[in-house]
Amino acid sequence: MKILLVFAHPEPESLAASLRDVAIRELEAAGHEVKVSDLYAMRWRSEVDRSDFPLLAANDRLRVAQASGEAFEAQSLTEDVKAEQEKLLWADTLILQFPLWWYSMPAILKGWVDRVYAYGFAYGVGEHSDKHWGDRFGEGTFAGKRAMLIVTTGGWEEHYSPRGINGPIDDLLFPINHGILYYPGYDVLPSFVTYRVDKLDARGFKEISFALRERMRSLETVEPIPYRSQNAGDYFIPSLHLRPELEDPNTSGFRLHLRSEPREAAVERRRA
Amino acid sequence: MKILLVFAHPEPESLAASLRDVAIRELEAAGHEVKVSDLYAMRWRSEVDRSDFPLLAANDRLRVAQASGEAFEAQSLTEDVKAEQEKLLWADTLILQFPLWWYSMPAILKGWVDRVYAYGFAYGVGEHSDKHWGDRFGEGTFAGKRAMLIVTTGGWEEHYSPRGINGPIDDLLFPINHGILYYPGYDVLPSFVTYRVDKLDARGFKEISFALRERMRSLETVEPIPYRSQNAGDYFIPSLHLRPELEDPNTSGFRLHLRSEPREAAVERRRA
Repeated sequence: MKILLVFAHPEPESLAASLRDVAIRELEAAGHEVKVSDLYAMRWRSEVDRSDFPLLAANDRLRVAQASGEAFEAQSLTEDVKAEQEKLLWADTLILQFPLWWYSMPAILKGWVDRVYAYGFAYGVGEHSDKHWGDRFGEGTFAGKRAMLIVTTGGWEEHYSPRGINGPIDDLLFPINHGILYYPGYDVLPSFVTYRVDKLDARGFKEISFALRERMRSLETVEPIPYRSQNAGDYFIPSLHLRPELEDPNTSGFRLHLRSEPREAAVERRRA
Repeated sequence: MKILLVFAHPEPESLAASLRDVAIRELEAAGHEVKVSDLYAMRWRSEVDRSDFPLLAANDRLRVAQASGEAFEAQSLTEDVKAEQEKLLWADTLILQFPLWWYSMPAILKGWVDRVYAYGFAYGVGEHSDKHWGDRFGEGTFAGKRAMLIVTTGGWEEHYSPRGINGPIDDLLFPINHGILYYPGYDVLPSFVTYRVDKLDARGFKEISFALRERMRSLETVEPIPYRSQNAGDYFIPSLHLRPELEDPNTSGFRLHLRSEPREAAVERRRA
């Protein structure tokens, strides 16, 4: 496998950096090729602005999606962005690793997404018709590739549980997993989340490392989150409403966008 | 009222900027005082790193929460951060305005949160005991103040509806409304969201402006989102699990963290 790990933590001696190195060693030991985009070390620029689009005339109004599409088409995006796009095309697996800051990714990683995910590359891909609403949510540039998050947080696991005050971790990560990874086509693997990292002792670190190495070994085989494909019949087009016969029509929320499967199929899958 | 509007769009001629100006004019016409933090115009730096903590010795490992708390205590945070903290303390109402990029805020605004929300200021406030788990989620530095989001998006409203493919807009904004605004104590007002902004014609802009002015007029009176207070008895401490007698114990998700009220009370409230 070819793996791109995008890393977003400012401290080279952090626990996050140690976990990153554990993951890399495990992957390389298994013969995989790993590239790392260490955003702080690269001094990544986070803000989308006019300087992203060198061909935009000084007196032209910046319309971000349009400028992004034109620059991508003309291959005139900045070199730092093009280099990341090349890595994404090269890799068959993408890992985003970050500390959870204010219930989301640090600004520097959001800025990587905002700048690298150009129109025509990660969105604005494919035709729109009454059967097909663009290549996204299950199709797109990264279809057939896999992606996952490695997340560290200072908070308690209980506080991120189904009835915990922060909200369930899977729901907090849904805008990233579904909206940033699944959108351009990745199969999204369950996230690897470590809690209370500031309190982790040597034994705790050993346990987490063991679990992380195990997750790295199963990158190719673990079952992806069963998000529903946009254009395969589950949604009306163009409203993109989930059909009422799928899931209780009185329910709403992120969970609707995961296929629920018959119990037998689930059991069979787990056995396999 | 004293209002701080934090604005995050790179184009001064954007529709977002026009809406910002509509809001400001309406507020000033009503006699309120408005300060604007226009992050792109200020060339705001988005990345939390060592330069945020000038007192940190060069060979000390950066532990972000700890360094943030020490710097806040010693009043040694950088001037740009201190200026924003002053504005937050000055304002009784905070408005964050941004385009929805990849289902969240642009990096530059996330970087404003990451850097300005210091430990001891926006988190790490108050005592921890078996009755009280810090001043947060309903208490904290900004208790008694109000906050809201003004969001523009290119997407269709249907796609953000309860069964739309993106997920419900209120759930997508929950990590911001609950996790960034309610956490340090703000009463959070319903968000003002504009869809398909790239297709908006003059008549559409007039309608949106009318609705936005109306929302600005009701800033002091509109009912906040009824998030549950952390320390008022709804949650066990320290697990911070919602008590099973509140909401169906088989349900989970963000919605649990809003008080459900008896129908009569709701009707009465709407009449008032």
